[in-house]
Amino acid sequence: MKVLPVLVFAVAAGTAVAATPKNPGELLAASPATDWRKPDPDRTLYMELPSGRVVIELAPDFAPQHVANIRTLVKAKWFDEGASVYRLQDNYVAQWGDATEKKPLGEAKKNVPAEFTRPIAGMPTFTKLPDRDTYADEAGYAAGFPVARDLKSGRAWLVHCYGMVGAGRANELDSGNGAELYAIIGSAPRLLDRNVTLVGRVLRGIELLSSLKRGTKPPLGFYEKPEDTTPIASVRFAADVSEDKRTNLEVLRTESATYKALVEMRRNRKDDWWKEPAGHVDVCNSSAPVRDAR
Amino acid sequence: MKVLPVLVFAVAAGTAVAATPKNPGELLAASPATDWRKPDPDRTLYMELPSGRVVIELAPDFAPQHVANIRTLVKAKWFDEGASVYRLQDNYVAQWGDATEKKPLGEAKKNVPAEFTRPIAGMPTFTKLPDRDTYADEAGYAAGFPVARDLKSGRAWLVHCYGMVGAGRANELDSGNGAELYAIIGSAPRLLDRNVTLVGRVLRGIELLSSLKRGTKPPLGFYEKPEDTTPIASVRFAADVSEDKRTNLEVLRTESATYKALVEMRRNRKDDWWKEPAGHVDVCNSSAPVRDAR
Repeated sequence: MKVLPVLVFAVAAGTAVAATPKNPGELLAASPATDWRKPDPDRTLYMELPSGRVVIELAPDFAPQHVANIRTLVKAKWFDEGASVYRLQDNYVAQWGDATEKKPLGEAKKNVPAEFTRPIAGMPTFTKLPDRDTYADEAGYAAGFPVARDLKSGRAWLVHCYGMVGAGRANELDSGNGAELYAIIGSAPRLLDRNVTLVGRVLRGIELLSSLKRGTKPPLGFYEKPEDTTPIASVRFAADVSEDKRTNLEVLRTESATYKALVEMRRNRKDDWWKEPAGHVDVCNSSAPVRDAR
Repeated sequence: MKVLPVLVFAVAAGTAVAATPKNPGELLAASPATDWRKPDPDRTLYMELPSGRVVIELAPDFAPQHVANIRTLVKAKWFDEGASVYRLQDNYVAQWGDATEKKPLGEAKKNVPAEFTRPIAGMPTFTKLPDRDTYADEAGYAAGFPVARDLKSGRAWLVHCYGMVGAGRANELDSGNGAELYAIIGSAPRLLDRNVTLVGRVLRGIELLSSLKRGTKPPLGFYEKPEDTTPIASVRFAADVSEDKRTNLEVLRTESATYKALVEMRRNRKDDWWKEPAGHVDVCNSSAPVRDAR
C-alpha cells in the first residue's frame, strides 16, 4: 500500500516502547507520565452533537473575559435549546450557536471587550519554535496552545491553527460574546490572528465538525436549508458531567522535554519513508498531542 | 450575524464592479478578462463521485512523468472499475485509487522516477511572495501552483497546500505511479514537500472529498468497513468529455497584475471588519482564485 506517513500525532494505546524512538509515536510511547497533564474539567467543554462529543479546552490565560461569558452561558444551559452548527465553509470554519441572535443571553454579557492579544509579561511558559514564522517575530506554544509574539509591542496572541476555537464577532470589536463560536477546519487562516478572539482548542472530535456537509450560501458558507444545520444537544463543563461519563484525556505538556524532542523530530523526520527532512516546522504543524488518559 | 469575513476567494457571478475595490471580491470583479485563463482540457481531469465532480488541473511543468503515467491510466479508463476513495484522515488527506494494488496497470508504468523537485531554470513565470517562508528561501506561484524554491541548490518544488494532489508512494522513492492519488484536506503538511511527488491541484469540488466520513483505522485513517469507501464512477480528461458536459472554469493568472494586487490586499485587509492587517501572507493563503468561465 502506498501511503503518506503518519503526521498527525495519533497516539495509539499499546505502542511499543522503543529504546531509541525513531518516530513521533515511539517517542510519545516512551515519554514519562509526568510530561502529560489532564485538562482541568472546569476549563473543558463537552459539546454533544448527534454524531458524538466535541471536547474543547478553554484558554482563560488568553481570553479570560470571553471564557467567563461562555461559562455563564454554559452554566445556564444556554446552548441546549435552539443552538446549532449553522455554517460550514470549506477550508475555513464551522460555526455554531444561535444563528438568529434573538435568544436572550440571560446573565451573560452581550458585548465582551476584544481579547485579540495579551501582554507577553505574565503569560504561561512559552516554548519557542526554532524556525522563523511568516507572520510574527516568534511562534511557539504556551499552556498547550499555539502562540505568536511581537517583541516590539510586547504582545502575544493565540494563532488560528486547525482546531482552534474562537468567538465570532460583527464589525464592532466588542461584539463577540461566545454565543457564536467557530472552529478552524482548514488551512490555517493566520490573517485572522489579532482580529478576533480565540478562546480555546478542540482536543477531540474536530472531525465531527470538519466532516459536516458544506454550506452553499455564497459567500460565507451558511446553510441554505434549515434541515442542513446540525442541532447541538447540549454544552457542559466536564466538571458538571458525572465522572463515568467524562472523556478522560491527557495533553502533552508543551513545556516538557518530550514536546521539545517531538518538535525536533518533526523538523527532521528520519524514519524509513522520508527522503528530505524539512529542517523546519511551523506553529500549525506542531500541535500538542492528545491521548486517552492512562 | 457575527461572521468571520470572506477569506476564501469565492468569486460570485454578478459582484458589482467597484471604482476602487475595497476587498478581494471587488478586485476580482473589476479585473480584466485577460488576467484569467481557461485550464487546458488536455491537462484537466474530471473525477466523478456519487456526490459530484472533482476538477483537477495537472502540473506537467513539475511532474511530467507522473502526469504522463496518469494520462495512460485515464485514457485506458483504468479508474472506472474498482477504484474508490479509501482513506480519509482528518486534517490531512483523502486518498483514492486501487487500494488493493492488485489491479493490472496495463500500459502504465509501475514505477515512475521521483519528481519531488525540479530546476528553477526553465520553470514557468514565478511570482514571488513578499514575505518570508518558514520552510524555504522563497515561496510564490507559478502557472497557478504554489511553489517553494531553494536558491543554493537551484531547485523548485510544489507545496502541500490545501487542495493539492499528489501521488502516494511506498518507501521506495520511485514507487509512486499515479494509480493512488491523494488530496490535502487540512492544515498544509509542508513537511511532505520534497518527499513525494505533487501532480496537480483541485480547482473545484475539494469539498466533495474534505466532507467525507473520516476513516478510523489507526494510525493512517483508512476505512475499516468496505462500505465506507466512496466509489469512483470515472476519471476523464476534460478534452474527452463533450463540450456541453464540461465544467468551464477560469483561473486567475498568477503572473497577472490582478493577482499581485490580490496578494497585497490579502496581506493588508482594510475593509470594515478588520482591525489589524496581518502585514504578511504565506503561500498556502494565497491560492489562485477560480471562477465559472465568463
